[in-house]
Amino acid sequence: MNQQSSDRVVIIGGGFGGLYAAKALGKAPVQVTLVDKRNFHLFQPLLYQVATGSVSPADISSPLRGILSPYKNITVLLDEAVDLDPQAQQVVLQSQTIPYDTLVVATGVSHHYFGNEQWRNLAPGLKTVEDALEMRRRIFMAFEAAEKETDPEKQKAWLTFVIVGGGPTGVELAGAIAELAFSILKHDFRNIDTRATRILLLEGMDRVLPPYAEELSANAQQALADLGVEILTKALVTKIESDRVTYRLGDRTEEVTAKTLLWAAGVKASSMGEILHQSTGVERDRVGRVMVEPDLSIPGYPNIFVIGDLAHFAHQDDKPLPGVAPVAMQEGDYVAKLIKKRLKGETLPPFRYTDYGSLAVIGKHAAVVDLGFIQFTGFLAWFIWVFAHIYFLIEFDNKLVVMIQWAWKYFTRKSGARLITGEESLLRVKVDEQGEYYTPETNKNQLKV
Amino acid sequence: MNQQSSDRVVIIGGGFGGLYAAKALGKAPVQVTLVDKRNFHLFQPLLYQVATGSVSPADISSPLRGILSPYKNITVLLDEAVDLDPQAQQVVLQSQTIPYDTLVVATGVSHHYFGNEQWRNLAPGLKTVEDALEMRRRIFMAFEAAEKETDPEKQKAWLTFVIVGGGPTGVELAGAIAELAFSILKHDFRNIDTRATRILLLEGMDRVLPPYAEELSANAQQALADLGVEILTKALVTKIESDRVTYRLGDRTEEVTAKTLLWAAGVKASSMGEILHQSTGVERDRVGRVMVEPDLSIPGYPNIFVIGDLAHFAHQDDKPLPGVAPVAMQEGDYVAKLIKKRLKGETLPPFRYTDYGSLAVIGKHAAVVDLGFIQFTGFLAWFIWVFAHIYFLIEFDNKLVVMIQWAWKYFTRKSGARLITGEESLLRVKVDEQGEYYTPETNKNQLKV
Repeated sequence: MNQQSSDRVVIIGGGFGGLYAAKALGKAPVQVTLVDKRNFHLFQPLLYQVATGSVSPADISSPLRGILSPYKNITVLLDEAVDLDPQAQQVVLQSQTIPYDTLVVATGVSHHYFGNEQWRNLAPGLKTVEDALEMRRRIFMAFEAAEKETDPEKQKAWLTFVIVGGGPTGVELAGAIAELAFSILKHDFRNIDTRATRILLLEGMDRVLPPYAEELSANAQQALADLGVEILTKALVTKIESDRVTYRLGDRTEEVTAKTLLWAAGVKASSMGEILHQSTGVERDRVGRVMVEPDLSIPGYPNIFVIGDLAHFAHQDDKPLPGVAPVAMQEGDYVAKLIKKRLKGETLPPFRYTDYGSLAVIGKHAAVVDLGFIQFTGFLAWFIWVFAHIYFLIEFDNKLVVMIQWAWKYFTRKSGARLITGEESLLRVKVDEQGEYYTPETNKNQLKV
Repeated sequence: MNQQSSDRVVIIGGGFGGLYAAKALGKAPVQVTLVDKRNFHLFQPLLYQVATGSVSPADISSPLRGILSPYKNITVLLDEAVDLDPQAQQVVLQSQTIPYDTLVVATGVSHHYFGNEQWRNLAPGLKTVEDALEMRRRIFMAFEAAEKETDPEKQKAWLTFVIVGGGPTGVELAGAIAELAFSILKHDFRNIDTRATRILLLEGMDRVLPPYAEELSANAQQALADLGVEILTKALVTKIESDRVTYRLGDRTEEVTAKTLLWAAGVKASSMGEILHQSTGVERDRVGRVMVEPDLSIPGYPNIFVIGDLAHFAHQDDKPLPGVAPVAMQEGDYVAKLIKKRLKGETLPPFRYTDYGSLAVIGKHAAVVDLGFIQFTGFLAWFIWVFAHIYFLIEFDNKLVVMIQWAWKYFTRKSGARLITGEESLLRVKVDEQGEYYTPETNKNQLKV
């Protein structure tokens, strides 16, 4: 490999992994091109707050060009990788083909419906800004439809929310919807009592937050129950219809009638996983993530790295590293450091993830924190959660306003971003021939994920 | 008319007029139903700031239910009026029919393309949140497309913005785009110099801001020119194509090649104007606004009022009252007061609008203020403009964050809401068979306006 100052590094994806790699190469003697199909970095851990109307998309997003504009050796390209030629060292983008000396792939994951792609429109997931706005529309439209409904059975269906998946996203969504129904919205309607809302969290494993310590799961479960969320563990969803979820609970099959179904259950690799497999023969795991070497490169291609959620790194524990922001950040930093070392003809020991702890928020004043040596819940956990998130938000874009917005919400119990917007927002709760209310499917299936 | 405590007031539209009428009836012995097809009130005077990426939609919107929840005699209905039966005193909504004793129509206006409806997709207007997000997408996508373009002619077309209409919206849009191109974005691109951007403001009259005093128009024109905006007055647009605007300038016909065309030129009455005309025979003006009586009712129907932009009130000056927020607010207040007086069997003198002045902002630190007895421009005008707007924003929803966001932007010259979002955001600048770049038309023509 030519390791001159003209070394060309191409990074695909501007999430936590790609962005940290780019920033760490910002002063290095390399030419960096960061490719992303969006013009902004999204702070995904707070996306559920957009979905539940607490903050606006721009509050948790930062324009990539703005973040990277101080680094004159970095070019941002709004484009999407569609193919790869590892022999010619070229990435094929939608509008051009670009050469690389080193390639960093950080394109993440998308929803996984376990072979039931038809569930996508019935129970949308939460990965993009558009996903979050669609969830927000469905959640607030459900209360509006219930307010108009005169049939008590149908009203009940509009006031029933089912969240599939008890990981951090599912837990945080359930907690935030409980806060809406039981507190924020309780004086806003005249025909319904939002406190009659039923929020059901279905988890396939035997406890919520399976990756956390058991005691913490139990605490989270208690905090959710205190908020009014019903939790069913060992519940395997077998069928999703427009107003019904069927699940297996042990030997029994049960169903619940609900108009609003939200998906927080699984992820699969983005299309770059398949492209890498086809072009380099690299192995993948069950959900399509790329099996990486101890230095995050792929076998036989020391100049191609895969980082973040797309990488399956199995060289540290008996299980792969989790798909969370801190892993992606550290991997991005590591790869940048390795590239800089190689420029000088030096090497670096294998990547090692340092786990500073896990966090999940369950509602106002309730969160769970797992710092490895200690686990705790409650107000202090919530406080730590807020400040950990704001610390990273501020790092990119000085989003002071988010902190002020939270403080404001905290003291007033208001929630200012409850807009029903988008093409489907304009009064699309209608009655069909059978007298059933329906919300037409959105065009989201036409979206690339 | 039965004027018991059971008096039923139906208000259609939750803009400035409808909302002020509702709030003023909040403690009165009447049952109020506010109907709106959106679940939020929009602070339309700041919509251009959403379109140019300064603030998020939620920052200038407030949920109607939240604003009105303290008033137990007010019910909010998310619905749309589609017909009226003034004899039976009933409004037909999409999902039900509701009776009224008094009806207040405040549904405003939409864009007017002067019989050229095919221009709608080529040069979108600015009335709704979706309009603003579509403008934002087009503006920021234009810079992205220019960055990728290698043909200098095409690059120039992407860096040319034409705004049709030199009223407050056109002037504010032109100023904000100039700020983006010449200041905020100037370090963000590598292949283009955003300072080469051309911003053209076309106005059909002989000066910008025609309703203001002449001296002020001249000052605004100078301020825009200082910002780098080219202004063409007496320019009548005759043709709009996807990358070209043709206009008549005196005897000459000229054209300009531009990829981004924005419409700020005219309004027409919303569909309630036509419905009122059909059902009551009320007269309308050239753009469909309803000719109202001195007390804002319509001839022969003392219990039907029309307020805000939809009303043509010609009893004060030789021209109708302008379609601005202060007029709508005062009309809403007046009608509420009249309804309360009638409950007691009393009367009220005809409506009179008190003009406290006009404001328009031209860019950072530049605005024009016309207080009637005095006109001025510059920093002080800008300062007054900011605080007048924040005063009204805070009234509804304590949107302190907007003030902080502006203060932040002021000190950092950052602009945080530059997201390209929506279904059309995902990399849709493509090359067609002839090698031309294009952005596919959005689905906005399917939207109800």
